[in-house]
Amino acid sequence: MNWLFIFVPIAALLEHFRPTAHTWIFFAACAAIVPVAHLIVESTEHIASRTGDAIGGLLNATFGNAPELIIATVALQAGLFDMVRASLIGAILANLLLALGVAFFLGGLRYHNQEYNPAATRIYSTMMLTAVISLVVPSAFNRFFGAVAAPRQEQLLNLGMAFVLLIAYGLYLLFMLKTHPEFFSSAASEAAHQEHHEEGEHWGMPRAIGTLLFASVLAAWMSEILVGAAEGTGKALGMSQVFIGIVILAIVGGAAESGSAIAMGRKNKMDLTVGIALGSCIQIALFVAPLLVLASYAVAPQPLALSFGRAELGSMFLAILIGAMVSGDGRSNWFKGAQLITVYVILAFLFYFMPETGPQ
Amino acid sequence: MNWLFIFVPIAALLEHFRPTAHTWIFFAACAAIVPVAHLIVESTEHIASRTGDAIGGLLNATFGNAPELIIATVALQAGLFDMVRASLIGAILANLLLALGVAFFLGGLRYHNQEYNPAATRIYSTMMLTAVISLVVPSAFNRFFGAVAAPRQEQLLNLGMAFVLLIAYGLYLLFMLKTHPEFFSSAASEAAHQEHHEEGEHWGMPRAIGTLLFASVLAAWMSEILVGAAEGTGKALGMSQVFIGIVILAIVGGAAESGSAIAMGRKNKMDLTVGIALGSCIQIALFVAPLLVLASYAVAPQPLALSFGRAELGSMFLAILIGAMVSGDGRSNWFKGAQLITVYVILAFLFYFMPETGPQ
Amino acid sequence: MNWLFIFVPIAALLEHFRPTAHTWIFFAACAAIVPVAHLIVESTEHIASRTGDAIGGLLNATFGNAPELIIATVALQAGLFDMVRASLIGAILANLLLALGVAFFLGGLRYHNQEYNPAATRIYSTMMLTAVISLVVPSAFNRFFGAVAAPRQEQLLNLGMAFVLLIAYGLYLLFMLKTHPEFFSSAASEAAHQEHHEEGEHWGMPRAIGTLLFASVLAAWMSEILVGAAEGTGKALGMSQVFIGIVILAIVGGAAESGSAIAMGRKNKMDLTVGIALGSCIQIALFVAPLLVLASYAVAPQPLALSFGRAELGSMFLAILIGAMVSGDGRSNWFKGAQLITVYVILAFLFYFMPETGPQ
Repeated sequence: MNWLFIFVPIAALLEHFRPTAHTWIFFAACAAIVPVAHLIVESTEHIASRTGDAIGGLLNATFGNAPELIIATVALQAGLFDMVRASLIGAILANLLLALGVAFFLGGLRYHNQEYNPAATRIYSTMMLTAVISLVVPSAFNRFFGAVAAPRQEQLLNLGMAFVLLIAYGLYLLFMLKTHPEFFSSAASEAAHQEHHEEGEHWGMPRAIGTLLFASVLAAWMSEILVGAAEGTGKALGMSQVFIGIVILAIVGGAAESGSAIAMGRKNKMDLTVGIALGSCIQIALFVAPLLVLASYAVAPQPLALSFGRAELGSMFLAILIGAMVSGDGRSNWFKGAQLITVYVILAFLFYFMPETGPQ
Repeated sequence: MNWLFIFVPIAALLEHFRPTAHTWIFFAACAAIVPVAHLIVESTEHIASRTGDAIGGLLNATFGNAPELIIATVALQAGLFDMVRASLIGAILANLLLALGVAFFLGGLRYHNQEYNPAATRIYSTMMLTAVISLVVPSAFNRFFGAVAAPRQEQLLNLGMAFVLLIAYGLYLLFMLKTHPEFFSSAASEAAHQEHHEEGEHWGMPRAIGTLLFASVLAAWMSEILVGAAEGTGKALGMSQVFIGIVILAIVGGAAESGSAIAMGRKNKMDLTVGIALGSCIQIALFVAPLLVLASYAVAPQPLALSFGRAELGSMFLAILIGAMVSGDGRSNWFKGAQLITVYVILAFLFYFMPETGPQ
Repeated sequence: MNWLFIFVPIAALLEHFRPTAHTWIFFAACAAIVPVAHLIVESTEHIASRTGDAIGGLLNATFGNAPELIIATVALQAGLFDMVRASLIGAILANLLLALGVAFFLGGLRYHNQEYNPAATRIYSTMMLTAVISLVVPSAFNRFFGAVAAPRQEQLLNLGMAFVLLIAYGLYLLFMLKTHPEFFSSAASEAAHQEHHEEGEHWGMPRAIGTLLFASVLAAWMSEILVGAAEGTGKALGMSQVFIGIVILAIVGGAAESGSAIAMGRKNKMDLTVGIALGSCIQIALFVAPLLVLASYAVAPQPLALSFGRAELGSMFLAILIGAMVSGDGRSNWFKGAQLITVYVILAFLFYFMPETGPQ
């Protein structure tokens, strides 16, 4: 797979010398991100083999979400608030439905039934639902009371909500890493780790961390090139901005953690798969989203309001509901994966056909 | 119960010689359908005793849904799109809440606690939720973007959704019958079968299949007489078309599989009960509904859009949620049945009082 | 804690001699209700130690809900329908999210993991969802068809729904106390009771019941003083009537059963905690609410319609969903408590910032 690294310089050169060849740049950057994501998987796996599944999953989610955070910050500075919001929703849908679905599907083709810790999944599901509630509230407020309420009150609500989310995220880390790590670890997958790494080469911590950092920077760079070319590509191929933001940018921006989650699924390390995919969703909703609200006071032309449209909120709510129902019993098979992918395809259809000028 | 067969010729004669006596025809056809449904139960049970619960449940659902499919196709040809949509929603509500509720209730009066396979129930629930999402998307599109979007886009969305549903249904059959049949079988109920059939007469496959086909045709014929008399009966008794379609037609059209599901519940074969009731819901949402969309291009004056109103979608969403919560732990008792029946009664109240001229 | 009883006469005297010092009266009554709630906890616990967890929980919920019922009836007589509706929703949110959340949180600080009977929780959750569906239906009817439908039809729907709820409540009591008490009892907490009461003083039934009745009357009296001063306090502190009703009145009116649920959580009697908090929710939705609808025909200037706004219904639906997901596995820890409290805080934010004049 390493030959795909050739697309890193190709994307960079194309962007420099042919800045109008949007579609070419776009697909070159897409191809370039695949090996970079793989490098992140590999280095995170080496670190995870020394730190246990919980911290490994957290590391994966953190460094996998770095591209999303960078893309959103750049868009925020340019005042592209709709794209910021679309990328947040899209990242959650891509992790919860597509990455988890593909991991279940491909894992299920290899293993008849796969098992993971249902207690951890329950924690993830309720955190996601908490996050959705905290995103619904300001959105509903903006929709129903936006005209009546004083703008200052709406800002206060947004700020209050951002602090509530950050506190909840802090408590979640405390719970996961300090007080109840046993909810998130799994003896079986730990054993599988050992076995796996005895076979292959064993990286030291400095090499693993250095590679992880380097690959994350590379992923961010390619993501930026992608975003720059996305608008032109959308026009060339007849796709709306919403579709580009929610579906394509989110898949590519999340390729790192998705690839990692899928790779773990194919190795039957389902606890790590679930930890990466759902942990990444939680981090976007509870950490990246409120951080962007706070950052918007510093870098953006006006404060960012977390006011999503009907289609976005409805999609996210239904995705979390079906995600919780599908993954709640700690077992997976290919058909559960197919169900999650089906829902993702249905929602992608909706965003593809949704008119840009219509009310959201 | 066989003396009720007398209502088959009575309904047919009434319809021929007294075509305006709608209420009489209606109730005669209702009475006629009861023994026909019973015949379907009996013949399917004989086949099921040789094929295992999964295929038995599938056969039951297929032949139990034949009347719904025939009714809907006739209504489609006549361009009665609202009635087609109402019959789809009504059939799902009747199976999920009423048939399952009565089966749990009557089974629970006889047995203190009844057990069934929760893994199968989880698959059914997530399939139902997938189906609802796929029905919500075109409905929401029609409501919010119908005025703005090009009609061709809405048609494409409907067609795309129909293909997604049919593919999902194909995968569901593959999962249920080929790769994971162990999720749907139950040793305990298999044993109960054997015991039951040792006592009674044992039909050969030709007799069982022949009876099943004959009874299905009879059920379809009576259902058609019912539909023809439904409008007049509604006017005579002061019930709206929506109520007739969603509540009465759905109960009578689904009498075959409901009777079967309830009979199994009273015999403590809960896996078969759940398989029939929930399997029937899935078949309506994932197979009958998209089939009707595709058929509408051939037989109907214009393409059928799966655009349901608020009340219909809300009812179905809440029904699936409570169905999943009630049946998710693989145990039932009379009170769980009473809960499902209560929700059905509440929704029936809503549709009874809902004004016909109001916005949906 | 008994020294807080001093606030009972203080609140009464303030209200008599300084009827305009609303804020002082308000906080005095708040303080007075704490020891009264504690007295209810103590006496109910003594009764519960002789009757088992189920009846103990039922007694607790009944006498804990007495203040809510009295407040609502007084408000009903005065025609303050919005306050009645707000107090119903607020009481459910306070029990389901705040009381259960604080009990899980404080219990979890003392015990690493706490266990309770998940079968009972599932019954509670589905009853709550049934109740929400029965509250959504008349609300949706009022919103969407209110202008078109004949007022008599809306009244009939309300009355029909009230009877359905009361029948469902009767069946729930039958199930809980007669046919399946084993779902609600717990050997472990029973043993803990015995141990607890061997140490302390053992009240006889007459003393326990007498104290319970006296404390309930006192709680009701203080609650009334509270309600009287609430409006003035709201104006003085800049809080809307909705916020006062849903958040402050509900917390104080439910202090009795909340205190009781929390105390049980800290004693690791989680079955009693869950029984009190969720049982109280069910009693409000299935017993207090329909009783008030029926009572409104006798005491109120016009019939009470159960027509809640979007924010109220949405809050309740999301609260029940997250409550069911959090408590569905029969295990609790401090973080689950923190999640429930977080959702309560988010909803309280919403009601705090929601403009009074805006559409609901």
